Amino acid sequence: MKTFNGSIARASKGNNHILDITDDVQRLVEEGGVRTGQVVAMVVGSTAGLTTLEFEPGLVNHDIAAAMERIAPKGGDYRHEQTWHDDNGHSHVRAALMGPSLALPVVEGRVPLGTWQQVVLVDFDTRPRQRQVVVTIVGD
Amino acid sequence: MKTFNGSIARASKGNNHILDITDDVQRLVEEGGVRTGQVVAMVVGSTAGLTTLEFEPGLVNHDIAAAMERIAPKGGDYRHEQTWHDDNGHSHVRAALMGPSLALPVVEGRVPLGTWQQVVLVDFDTRPRQRQVVVTIVGD
Amino acid sequence: MKTFNGSIARASKGNNHILDITDDVQRLVEEGGVRTGQVVAMVVGSTAGLTTLEFEPGLVNHDIAAAMERIAPKGGDYRHEQTWHDDNGHSHVRAALMGPSLALPVVEGRVPLGTWQQVVLVDFDTRPRQRQVVVTIVGD
Repeated sequence: MKTFNGSIARASKGNNHILDITDDVQRLVEEGGVRTGQVVAMVVGSTAGLTTLEFEPGLVNHDIAAAMERIAPKGGDYRHEQTWHDDNGHSHVRAALMGPSLALPVVEGRVPLGTWQQVVLVDFDTRPRQRQVVVTIVGD
Repeated sequence: MKTFNGSIARASKGNNHILDITDDVQRLVEEGGVRTGQVVAMVVGSTAGLTTLEFEPGLVNHDIAAAMERIAPKGGDYRHEQTWHDDNGHSHVRAALMGPSLALPVVEGRVPLGTWQQVVLVDFDTRPRQRQVVVTIVGD
Repeated sequence: MKTFNGSIARASKGNNHILDITDDVQRLVEEGGVRTGQVVAMVVGSTAGLTTLEFEPGLVNHDIAAAMERIAPKGGDYRHEQTWHDDNGHSHVRAALMGPSLALPVVEGRVPLGTWQQVVLVDFDTRPRQRQVVVTIVGD
C-alpha cells in the first residue's frame, strides 16, 4: 500500500471556463505507481468545481454555462454581493452545486474513464484565476 | 490494509432511468473484506451519474426527471448537438451536474446508509445503454 | 498505512439550514494521524447534502436556497408526496442533486481548503433534524 500526492496548476479565464485536466490526473496516477486504488482531486477555493464531461466545443463553450445561467443567473440578486460588494454571487452558488472535488477509481494503474469522458475543472469566477487542484492517491 | 476492485454491469432504458445499485455496492464491499475504509464508484461514460436517494416510485419515475427538465430541458438549444448531430445535449449537461462518481465510507464492513437512502445510477441518455460502474475499495 | 473512522453529530433546523463542519472534519483528520491520504464524509439520510462554500451570511441564509428554489421549488408538484403523504419532495430532489458525500485530499495532516472555503452540511428537510455525518480517513 502506498500514498502519493501532487498538484495541478492551471491558469483559467473564469466565466465558466472549462479546462481538461484528464492528462494531468492520469500522469499523477502513473507517477504514484498505484495499480488499484483511488484518486481524489479538489480544487482550492469556492468559485470553481470539478466533474467529468465530453470535452467538445458545444458543451464546453455554451451548454454547461447555459444550464448554470438557469440555476444561478449572472444578473440575479445575491446577498453574497451585499456582504462583500463584489459581483460573483452566482459563481459561488454554481461552484457549491457542482462540488469542489471528485473521487475516482484507479484500476490497472489508470482511471478507467470512457473514451468521451474527460476530467474537467470549471471556473465560475468572474475574472482570470490561477487555479490549484490538489490530488492524493491511495492504493496498492 | 487492502484494496479491492470490481464492477457492476446493468442494462438501463435511458431517459432518466434510475437503477438501485445499493446491493451490488454492499456485496462488493463485503467481498473486499474491508472493515474500515472507503469505496469509490464511477459510472463509465458522460451521460449518466451516481447519487443517493430514497428509491420510491415518486422520485424515481417523476420528480428527479422534472427537476432536470428545469435545469437542462430536453427540447432546449444545445451546441453539443450541432457538434455531433445527435439529440442528447441535455443528457450530457445533466450528467456533468450530477457527477459521475460517489465516494462513501465503509464502517464495520458496510456503507452506513440511512434506511431510506439507496445508491443509484441515473441514466440521462436518450436510448437504452449497457452501463458499467467501476468500484474500488481501500481500507483495513 | 492506517484507517480511522469517526462521526459528527449536529442538530439542524432544516429548510436549507447550512452548518459549517470544517473544524469537525479537520479535528477528525488530526485525530486519525494521517499525513497524506483521503477523507470521505457522508451524511446519513436522503434529505441533506455536503459541499464546500464560503461560509458567509449572504450565501448561507439566502443565495443557496434561492437557487434550489429554481431547481426544485418548495410548492412544486412532487409524486414523492403522493407516495408518503408528506411535504418534503423538494428536499429529496435537492439532496440527490447536491450529493450525500464528499471526498477530500489530506496533505500534511490537513484538508488543504482555501481560506474562504468551508465544508458544509446543507439540510433540505422541512423540519429540525439530528444529523449524523460518518467520516473515514485512509492514508499514511
